[in-house]
Amino acid sequence: MTEVRSHISVSLDGYVAGPNQTPQDPLGERGERLHDWVIQTESWRREHGREGGASGADSDVVDAAQRNVGAQIMGRNMFGPPAGGAWDEDWKGWWGDEPPFRTPVYVLTHHPREPLEMDGGTTYHFVTDGIESALEQARAAAGERDVLIAGGASAINQYLAAGLLDELLLHIVPIVLGGGARLLEGVGDPKLEPVEVVAAPAVTHVRYRLG
Amino acid sequence: MTEVRSHISVSLDGYVAGPNQTPQDPLGERGERLHDWVIQTESWRREHGREGGASGADSDVVDAAQRNVGAQIMGRNMFGPPAGGAWDEDWKGWWGDEPPFRTPVYVLTHHPREPLEMDGGTTYHFVTDGIESALEQARAAAGERDVLIAGGASAINQYLAAGLLDELLLHIVPIVLGGGARLLEGVGDPKLEPVEVVAAPAVTHVRYRLG
Repeated sequence: MTEVRSHISVSLDGYVAGPNQTPQDPLGERGERLHDWVIQTESWRREHGREGGASGADSDVVDAAQRNVGAQIMGRNMFGPPAGGAWDEDWKGWWGDEPPFRTPVYVLTHHPREPLEMDGGTTYHFVTDGIESALEQARAAAGERDVLIAGGASAINQYLAAGLLDELLLHIVPIVLGGGARLLEGVGDPKLEPVEVVAAPAVTHVRYRLG
Repeated sequence: MTEVRSHISVSLDGYVAGPNQTPQDPLGERGERLHDWVIQTESWRREHGREGGASGADSDVVDAAQRNVGAQIMGRNMFGPPAGGAWDEDWKGWWGDEPPFRTPVYVLTHHPREPLEMDGGTTYHFVTDGIESALEQARAAAGERDVLIAGGASAINQYLAAGLLDELLLHIVPIVLGGGARLLEGVGDPKLEPVEVVAAPAVTHVRYRLG
């Protein structure tokens, strides 16, 4: 059965991007440090078409999190506004001609646009009628597989607040960002149960089920 | 050798007390849920002069965290302003005639006051000349044992910001408080390394060393 899941790297003070984010610097100050651990893993590198990387606990966690994903949903800022700010039909997002998603991706936006088919199995669909509609479309595309809320903070927070998330896996990175994009903001009082903890050397992975 | 340590229960969104704290309600809205897990442990109950409680991972973590403590430091709000707001010499804090600390306790405050000797080994010392002075006095009292920064958020944040903490043990409670007393605020960019993770059923305990 389809699960609606999310997994994201979060600083110890609860941010998924650092302060002073801009279109040119979407991770904000020091925000790239949230992802130092993942770009060293074998599984992430394989997914992004790169060689090498480390096997082990971190890599296994990423592997499991990305497994059985049939469709993804992301916020507009994760798809990526162009540096100038305005979208046009030539802009294909941050992720290049062969994005690492390899599934249908539903982008939450206010700007209607035709679907954009990329190399490697990713097709971007631009959804202008809200998170429930995006989830409905993603579920239909995913079939028996899972729907991943890919990010960023705002998209995940909206699905959490609406009670639509089944599972949230946090990669707790031991850094303090002091500002930026706050996870778990405006989400009400969700019922969370930790069901799996993986203590990797640099990052603590905690998987929560939503009640 | 003396270590300067702290351990505290924190919500998944980084608060150690809920919103709308008042002198009558120092834990704020829903803040008492941060401590549900600990008051069920055998070790906490013993320390607070109560019987019963559960053994197991949570109890063992509390036991280890409270072991070898020779002196403690706390903020004024943890000692406890009286409900009316003003201190007088009759006010003996939140913690009753026999407080659970059983060591010298250095209270960070702007109000000078004579030391207050309580039953059971706790003596409150009121320190008006800053966190370094309090730590110096606590170190002297602790001898070879450790100094515990008992709380709350502000006291811990100040010691973190000053680079004076050796170890921070977080009891990560899977609740979202949405506001309140924020841990890790204004602490700069401390170097933290997770050195121990205990995955108890309801709470995830992560011990960090400060670099």
